[in-house]
Amino acid sequence: MLIKEKLDQAVAVLNEIGIDCWLTFVRETIEMMDPAMHFVAGRDVVWGAVFLVHNSGRKVAIVGQGDHLDFVASGLYDDVVTYTQSLAEPLCQLLQDLDPGSIAINYAVDNPAADGLTLGMYKRLKGYLEGTPYPERFVSAEPVISRVRGRKTPEELRRMKAAAVETLDMFGILTQCIQPGWTLRDISEFMHNLMRERGVGHAWSYEGDPGITSGDMPEGHGTPGDIPIQPGHVLRLDFGIKKDGYCSDLQRTWYLLKAGETTAPPEVEAAFAVVREGIETAAAMLKPGVLGWKVDEAVRSVLRRHGYPEYPHALGHQVGIWAHDGGSILGPRWERYGEAPYQPVEKDQVFTLEFSIQTPYGHVSQEDMVVVTERGCQYVVEPQQDLWLLRFGH
Amino acid sequence: MLIKEKLDQAVAVLNEIGIDCWLTFVRETIEMMDPAMHFVAGRDVVWGAVFLVHNSGRKVAIVGQGDHLDFVASGLYDDVVTYTQSLAEPLCQLLQDLDPGSIAINYAVDNPAADGLTLGMYKRLKGYLEGTPYPERFVSAEPVISRVRGRKTPEELRRMKAAAVETLDMFGILTQCIQPGWTLRDISEFMHNLMRERGVGHAWSYEGDPGITSGDMPEGHGTPGDIPIQPGHVLRLDFGIKKDGYCSDLQRTWYLLKAGETTAPPEVEAAFAVVREGIETAAAMLKPGVLGWKVDEAVRSVLRRHGYPEYPHALGHQVGIWAHDGGSILGPRWERYGEAPYQPVEKDQVFTLEFSIQTPYGHVSQEDMVVVTERGCQYVVEPQQDLWLLRFGH
Repeated sequence: MLIKEKLDQAVAVLNEIGIDCWLTFVRETIEMMDPAMHFVAGRDVVWGAVFLVHNSGRKVAIVGQGDHLDFVASGLYDDVVTYTQSLAEPLCQLLQDLDPGSIAINYAVDNPAADGLTLGMYKRLKGYLEGTPYPERFVSAEPVISRVRGRKTPEELRRMKAAAVETLDMFGILTQCIQPGWTLRDISEFMHNLMRERGVGHAWSYEGDPGITSGDMPEGHGTPGDIPIQPGHVLRLDFGIKKDGYCSDLQRTWYLLKAGETTAPPEVEAAFAVVREGIETAAAMLKPGVLGWKVDEAVRSVLRRHGYPEYPHALGHQVGIWAHDGGSILGPRWERYGEAPYQPVEKDQVFTLEFSIQTPYGHVSQEDMVVVTERGCQYVVEPQQDLWLLRFGH
Repeated sequence: MLIKEKLDQAVAVLNEIGIDCWLTFVRETIEMMDPAMHFVAGRDVVWGAVFLVHNSGRKVAIVGQGDHLDFVASGLYDDVVTYTQSLAEPLCQLLQDLDPGSIAINYAVDNPAADGLTLGMYKRLKGYLEGTPYPERFVSAEPVISRVRGRKTPEELRRMKAAAVETLDMFGILTQCIQPGWTLRDISEFMHNLMRERGVGHAWSYEGDPGITSGDMPEGHGTPGDIPIQPGHVLRLDFGIKKDGYCSDLQRTWYLLKAGETTAPPEVEAAFAVVREGIETAAAMLKPGVLGWKVDEAVRSVLRRHGYPEYPHALGHQVGIWAHDGGSILGPRWERYGEAPYQPVEKDQVFTLEFSIQTPYGHVSQEDMVVVTERGCQYVVEPQQDLWLLRFGH
């Protein structure tokens, strides 16, 4: 049902941006699956396959004999053509019948979610179509895929909200269960067990989800190690889950009180207030049409005004099938982000807002998810309003 | 340890085939991971990264700040260079220092396991190196990757044997537990539960592993449905597991006796004998240097001699990280297999030998795994010598 909705969305997008058809060409997707397959197939194929969506609304799949019956049963395609020895002929036939003036294929310099066609498969596709006018009509499917993947349907938003609510609940369980002497690895195992019990998946690499820092350690150590949590430390978790195929991505911050303390040290409180201010600044700006780099820059200027260094990453990325969902970002105009910070924000996209401030006690941070509405944005779940204080029996 | 062995194997292969260096260029690998990452990193990266193996033995990684510490800790690379805004400069610097005459990059028309570089990433890489002589020195890494992935180390062979032994054990448990009235979906769920209990993964798509046929139904329905098993039917499972990162892929065949029967019908027995003959024919031919299509053709001629139709796929594929492991195959000279059937078989490759014969009672088949030795090949686990007969309380 969801895939049918996304395919219909693709037809509308083709008409909106004036591209005649969208062609996904894949093979043996268990090894490496073109991310577009989430929306055109929703399953693996074993043999080479073509999925074509035309702006007339017609949808045609060419699949190997071994994949044929499942695609017929899916009802997603008007025609499911099958082959045994080669898909070259049915593909040429299909393009001749439709004679599209532009053919969007899955490559993109900046958007990993729209870059599923490998160089070898591109060469193979060109080989199949040698002597036809069609290779000259190839265009990047980036504008198609970024819209189809970015603009969440009500059902996608419902799934993401459910994932975020469950993530907050799991943060709450950790808060109740965490014990003195636990290492970061213990916390990681605790969260992994919780994920297994609840049958939810990870939102990025298993080892690095949750990402955990405690005390004065460098950011960006993906795999939590044997460092024990300690009173006087700031503990920060970056955690996301995948539920019904859609992800959450949230960060929350705790302070572990020392004997006699009732609040966190002033530096920690001050950093948390600036994190809140930065995220609120971004949320107030985020709406359809704004450019991502401007939102990122506004938050950097908050940091500069308070005398903190800037973060070495983007303020926000889109969330969906994975925590990092590709497409436009709220990020600085650095080479590695390419054109992604220059793309206007659209309604129904879901972004994170996230950064941390390093203090001598640990990284103070927050990461929230927001969905873009007609005139602004809404938090997917309540942001953290105050530091969470932990007191261990003293 | 295994990755270090594979990287050292890559250095030896570069020297063997006369390529100066092997360059893997990736980004955000959770979305879609270049299959070469299994051997050059063994983990995800979040930011763009380069992994370079030089024929001198020197190994250099360029990774984003967020991935840096984990790669330093891995000890796999002589140098781990890090960056925040762009990897263009450290990459150009590295190539200038080494000035390689040939640079293998991950694209291949025929081998999915060697085709991890997307078209967008290729364009990005060329952009980074514009104005340098290096893009002209690009060659396909197919000959590197197919050797590194295909030639299993003793540790890889040990893991695959363990997976195959466990798969046979699971077939045995099914034989003991299967009940009258079970549907193919029930069998699938039984095997999935067994996989979960034992903590092993699937060797191809979850829904289609095991693939199951029973009675007179078409082959190639990936997802087992609500068809009940019945006395008088042949039941066939195509099943593989992933254990410690390496896969098995085996097929076994049962016959469900009807009341009063003590053996399968003659057509079924005859088909099973020809399946055995075909597989033994292939095993007798398989040795280093033989071309895959000749082994496949010899089995087709066995089928023709007995008056059976030929199978619509290759006789055998390599097994390893996945059930379908890429590289050379034992298959017919059909367009869709490209050059893969023309590549000489090598020592320490693991192939399947598999085909089925359709009878009015169901598909009779067998799939075995063989490892290529110095002068021939060996079964990884015992092949099925006779049909397995099931009798339900009558």
